[in-house]
This record gives sequence, C-alpha cells and structure tokens, in this order.
Amino acid sequence: MELSEAYPMTGGDGLHSYAKNSDFQRKAIDVAKQLISKAIAQGLDVGDFNSTKSLGIADLGCSVGPNTFTAVDNIIEAVKSKYESQIPEFHVFFNDHVSNDFNLLFTSLPQDKQYYAAGVPGSFYDHVFPDASLHIVHSSSSLHWLSGVPKEVTNNNSPAFNKGRITYANSGDEVIRAFKAQNRKDMDRFLHARALEVVPGGLVILVFPYNPDGTHPSRIPINMSFGLIGSALMDLAGKGIVGEDKVDSFNMPVYVMHRHEVEAAVERNGCFSVVSMEILPKVRENFSSNDSVVDEIVGRARSATEGIIKPHFGEDILDELFDVFRKKLAEDFVPSAKTVDQEHLFLALKRKP
Amino acid sequence: MELSEAYPMTGGDGLHSYAKNSDFQRKAIDVAKQLISKAIAQGLDVGDFNSTKSLGIADLGCSVGPNTFTAVDNIIEAVKSKYESQIPEFHVFFNDHVSNDFNLLFTSLPQDKQYYAAGVPGSFYDHVFPDASLHIVHSSSSLHWLSGVPKEVTNNNSPAFNKGRITYANSGDEVIRAFKAQNRKDMDRFLHARALEVVPGGLVILVFPYNPDGTHPSRIPINMSFGLIGSALMDLAGKGIVGEDKVDSFNMPVYVMHRHEVEAAVERNGCFSVVSMEILPKVRENFSSNDSVVDEIVGRARSATEGIIKPHFGEDILDELFDVFRKKLAEDFVPSAKTVDQEHLFLALKRKP
Repeated sequence: MELSEAYPMTGGDGLHSYAKNSDFQRKAIDVAKQLISKAIAQGLDVGDFNSTKSLGIADLGCSVGPNTFTAVDNIIEAVKSKYESQIPEFHVFFNDHVSNDFNLLFTSLPQDKQYYAAGVPGSFYDHVFPDASLHIVHSSSSLHWLSGVPKEVTNNNSPAFNKGRITYANSGDEVIRAFKAQNRKDMDRFLHARALEVVPGGLVILVFPYNPDGTHPSRIPINMSFGLIGSALMDLAGKGIVGEDKVDSFNMPVYVMHRHEVEAAVERNGCFSVVSMEILPKVRENFSSNDSVVDEIVGRARSATEGIIKPHFGEDILDELFDVFRKKLAEDFVPSAKTVDQEHLFLALKRKP
Repeated sequence: MELSEAYPMTGGDGLHSYAKNSDFQRKAIDVAKQLISKAIAQGLDVGDFNSTKSLGIADLGCSVGPNTFTAVDNIIEAVKSKYESQIPEFHVFFNDHVSNDFNLLFTSLPQDKQYYAAGVPGSFYDHVFPDASLHIVHSSSSLHWLSGVPKEVTNNNSPAFNKGRITYANSGDEVIRAFKAQNRKDMDRFLHARALEVVPGGLVILVFPYNPDGTHPSRIPINMSFGLIGSALMDLAGKGIVGEDKVDSFNMPVYVMHRHEVEAAVERNGCFSVVSMEILPKVRENFSSNDSVVDEIVGRARSATEGIIKPHFGEDILDELFDVFRKKLAEDFVPSAKTVDQEHLFLALKRKP
C-alpha cells in the first residue's frame, strides 16, 4: 500500500480557516443538490431496509465546515423521498486526512442531525472502510487533490523537472505527462477502493473541478490561481525571502481531469456503471471585477493551500505571499478571465452487481 | 433524550495528560485480557462471517492513549483465535465525549493496525450507533462516571445538599441515595442503548471499579482520592482562594457500584445474559508507601479530574490544589490504606436472541 501525503484545509474557525472560506464549495454543493436527488431516486438500488440494516453514507475529503453537513443532509433527504414507507437509520462517516481538524468537525455536528456520525481518518486513495459496508459515497471538491506530487517533477535530473513553477498547467509536456500519469494511478486506486467498499447497487457521487476540452489547463481558474501563487513565490525568491530551490522542489499535488480521462478511469476499473455525468450549472454566470471578488479568491486559495505551503516554506512568508498573490490577481487574473469560478463535473456511479 | 455532561480526561500528551497518566488503567486492561479472551471464546455467538460482513467493535469511553489500542488488540486477538478459518474484517469505533481529543487519538492510531478505525463522538448513555450494528462492545474504567451530578446534591434547600464535600462517599444517607438513584437511571440508559446497538449473540464487556460488600464507600481507593481532593478544596476555601459556595456546588459525577447493583441493572434490562462476572485479579498485591506511589496517584487523579475541576474553579488553582492533595495523600491516605489500587469488576454480557 502506498502512503498518501496529507494536505489539510486550514483548521479552526479563524480568518484563514477553510470553515470561513468555503462559500464557493458550498455553492457547488447547492447546485449539485438536484442532480444528487435524481441520481439517488433513479440509481440507488440496494434493496429494502429493515430495523437491522442501516444505510451507510461516507463523505470523502469532508474537511471541516458547514458544507460537509449540507451535502449529507441533501443525500439523506433524497433517500427519505425514495424510501418513503421504510426509512432506514443512517450511519454517516466523515472521512479526511488524519491531520484534518476532527475535533472541530465533531463539535460542529448539528444538534438535530438525523444520523449516527463517525469520523474516519485516512486518505481516500486507500481502502478506509470494510468491504461492502457503504451504500452511498459522496465527495465534493476533493478528487483533484492527488495522493502526492509525482517524484520526477522535483528531480532536477529529470526531463520532467518543473523548475520555477508549482503547477503542471503552465509547464512543458513532460511535466503535464507526469501529473497525468499520477492522476491515472490515483483514479485507479480511488475506484478500486470504492468498488470494494460499496455494496452492489450502491452509489458513488463525485463533484470535482474539470478541464473542458479545448481549454488549455493553464486557462482554467483553479490552475490560474495556482500559477499566480507560483509566480508570487518566485517574486519572493527574487527578493531573497525564499530560496529558488525551495520553489523548484515544491508543487501543488493537483490535477484537473478532462472528461475523457474520467470516462477512461471508470472504464478501466469496470466495477461501476455511469448513472449520470453532467457539467454542473455555473455557480455564477457573471462576475464584476471588484475587490470583494479578489478577497473571496484570496481567502479561498489561502485556506486551501496554507496547509501544504506552510510545512515547506514556513509560516513567516504566508502574509507577504498572499499579499503579492492578491496584487497579481487584481492586476492580471480578474480583469482578463471570463469567469473566476471553476467549472465542476457531476458524476454518479452505480456499483455493478 | 437527556443530555449528558462531558468529563474529558486531560487531552494532549503533556505532563498532566491522561495519555501520560493511565498506567494503572492499562494494568487493569492487561489483567482483563485472559477474561476477555475466555468470554469471546465461549460467549460470542454471532454466526459465520463472509466477505460482505465485518465485525463491529466499539470501545466506549476510549479517551486518548495507548490503553485504547491495547484493549482493542486483545479483543481482535481473541476473535481471531475463535474464527481461525474465517477471520472477518474488523470495524473499530472509538467512542468518547465530543470534547475528547480525537485529533490526538487519530494521529496515535498504530501504523500496523488490523482494522478500519472510526471515531464516534457522544455520551455512551445515549444511543450512539445504529440498531444491531455492533458485535462486541468494550468499556474499561468508564462506567463509574455518571451522566451528571444528581441535581439535589447541589441544591442548598434539599436534604441531599452535599455541603463541603465533592463525593457521596463520605456523606449522609440522603446524598448516597441521590447518587445511587442517578446510577440506577444511568445504568438503565446504558444497557437500553447497548441492547439496541448489539446484535443477538454479541457481547458487552465491561471493566469498572466496584465497591466490595461490607466496605463503606468512603473506604475504597477511588473515593478516598476524591474525598481528599474535596478536603484540599475546602482548605483552599479556608484560605479564601476559592469560595466555599463554589465547593458546595461542585460534585464528582462518580458512583462506584456494588455487585448486587450491577446484577439488578442487568436483571431490570432483561436483554442480556451474564457470560461472566468476576473480580479482576489485583493489579498489585502490595505497595510500598513511598514517593513514587504518591506521584502515581497524584498524576492519575489529576489527569482524570482536571477536565471537570477546571471549568468550575478555573485553571489557576490547579497546581496548588494538587500540591495540597499530594500532602494529604502522603500524610493520611498512603500510610493508612491497605491498598492504593482500586478493585475492578469484569462483566461480560451476551445479547439475548
């Protein structure tokens, strides 16, 4: 079993916490609600329930924050509509890396929750539940995080050495190939683990950023953000605040899939049929290029990346780094981008018998 | 549903943490090992396992520390001996109050664990798992903690007002009756919840301090410790460091059962048969009255009570309080006591069909 690295969202509920900066992710969950409801109504096929069988739901990469509970509530509402006459008990497992702030998650659990809750530490690229123990798996805004950075991109003897950049998106073909290969391996691990854990007829519901065909990876919002953080890090290196080799040895473990890559992974795995695969309606059609948008993107990017930047570069650079990032965003990104909101793919898979 | 108050053991891994001061509790688990093994070999009767059914184990009141994992390992070893040919997957649920340090628990999970782990926040006096979802429930050194202090003992208009004391053990009959009644209610809640959660043929294995017949509650080690903490608090009140009314309104939510009270609770509940009920072999037969014993008792008492004393009296008094406690122990308790080690009862119950 390969070990997966951990990239926690910023814990606690402070200014830069994920809990306070996950509004966008919540919107993605809201627009997915109808699709989740439809997938459960039409796709879930796990037989009847009785008093000795509860329905197991896992939220993978749950992080900490109100979003987690919203997604689970949406799922439970959909199941209740489907099994009107015989509503099962719900056992909900909140999964994330061991470094996630589970203490905060547990104290935030809604008082009136309609389920038994448990926290499950561990990477979702591993097998984290017993065989056939889950009926519905959900994961939102998590699957673009790789299990780790492909080794060759931080090796200065490799043709895939990603010098001076922290994302594959604006790099050469060798770097892109290395990230693609890592994603392919990770998707195989992810689907293999879920195929074991989910009962026949059970669902795997995934919402994740995607890369539309015909759009270069460097032109999608999430990668543009990472590109600007990388550029801000190089500015800091230019001023001698961080070593250039520190930047060279750092990469965001993120890859944003094309639709055909998702389809190929499901095909290779072979244990799931596709119930639904749709581009999520855009959270916002338009945006106005103003300070509040910049604030929002900075908050979102910082809460999602601090946990991986800090151990590599130290805490001291964070404020300056995100100040430079903010300036670049305001000058460069927001005025030129058609949208600041990353598009997401909705995918519902059913475990074959 | 009544809410249960939370009395966490001291978290983290510092000097006064439960993780660093639970050596005695570990010894209780070690001496229980043989009894657990026998109870599982002879009592567990949950049918065969196959690849679609895992064995659910819950450790209730797990706290944080190496003990938790030891107890679970003992249980798994016993199950593996029993089901030699067809070893199931294990799903282990670590339960404690929501204020328990689950982050530390998760980072402490053994690398080579043979089970899928989950954390479950909530009082074990409530229903915290779905119906019929567990095969073995274990709880060690936890059941003497009540769900709360009976209200009348902190009401100065009640005949059960426990003025100037923090335990029932050295108080009048009214106070003792109030704690007895609370324990009776709590035991009914505990067994009722477990009767729902445990499958027919499944086991509930409990290790807890008990009060031998013929021994006054004030003469058993655990209550003697609490009595001396109460006396130390009154000394602090005498010096004006804490208000006397603060001491009057504080009680340890602990009751140590007699054997017949345990038997009566099982009888009232009616859903369990007794597989085994034994007095645990003593951890130590003798002890020498020296500083290391005093240190050990102070460490153990502080890690177990700080979490409940601090919110009521504030953090500032803790060092002085436990200094006074230490002096009283050395002068009063250790020289006069026959043993400093609390005796424990081992109880294995089987869920009736």
